[in-house]
Amino acid sequence: MTDTLCPVARTVDRVGDAWSLMILRDAFHGLTRFDQFQKSLGVAPNILTRRLAKLVEAGMLERRRYNARPPRDEYVLTAQGRDFWPVLVAMMAYGNRHFAREGVASQLVDAQTGAPAEPVLADAATGRRLDPAAFKFAAGPAADPAVLARMAFADARRV
Amino acid sequence: MTDTLCPVARTVDRVGDAWSLMILRDAFHGLTRFDQFQKSLGVAPNILTRRLAKLVEAGMLERRRYNARPPRDEYVLTAQGRDFWPVLVAMMAYGNRHFAREGVASQLVDAQTGAPAEPVLADAATGRRLDPAAFKFAAGPAADPAVLARMAFADARRV
Repeated sequence: MTDTLCPVARTVDRVGDAWSLMILRDAFHGLTRFDQFQKSLGVAPNILTRRLAKLVEAGMLERRRYNARPPRDEYVLTAQGRDFWPVLVAMMAYGNRHFAREGVASQLVDAQTGAPAEPVLADAATGRRLDPAAFKFAAGPAADPAVLARMAFADARRV
Repeated sequence: MTDTLCPVARTVDRVGDAWSLMILRDAFHGLTRFDQFQKSLGVAPNILTRRLAKLVEAGMLERRRYNARPPRDEYVLTAQGRDFWPVLVAMMAYGNRHFAREGVASQLVDAQTGAPAEPVLADAATGRRLDPAAFKFAAGPAADPAVLARMAFADARRV
């Protein structure tokens, strides 16, 4: 991709494929073992091996030996992996709003009360709701000429 | 995938590949035309054609004729497509936190003041910050036995 400084592109580059995203979803559901992921996803073993290695390399999963003889490893979310939670929750909310033709099958709820939450984006510092009317994409300090040109274009096309 | 009722899986199934996610990012930057996407992403024309068609089929992009002779179409985000904004913003925030080794190249800012926002998830009704300590995944009214079993497993593995 041409603008490799883009933080969206960098995230997509590491986890932006269907299997990686589904492995991360499963990891948040508590799955850790190769055979658990394989059974859950119906994915070919060689593909699962590659995706797990890629997620380990990206710093999102950690490989841990849980049995010495025979040697067996499990894959556990790192702190950086657990920080991906908001992306999956945003995808879940999106799926529930637009693709849940039978109704809501799974959702985010208050762990104490069981009350369903409606996930939206807010600014951590102010608590203000984030929306495309009041907020926009802009270049940051590390922007190069390509990012600056892209952000100027986006700014001019904002409606 | 075995649990097709899962709203994450349904979203991933429709847009969970690198090209579709990058096309959506570009669409939020104001790109609309085939040659704009192609130049931005360096993607093969046949793949771009397929991904655009898939995003149209998923209801996220709308194909519009902007020139009659020669016939030329552009691809514009639908209301449902624009609603995907939080997922991309969450991915951008994630990329900036974990993969921006040179610093922040692009970010979300207040459109009036230019102040950078720090996107986090909150509950629309209460404004409460959403985090995995206080909130959990749970079955909804449309859950089938597979989803119920999955959510019970996830609940038992919660730390």
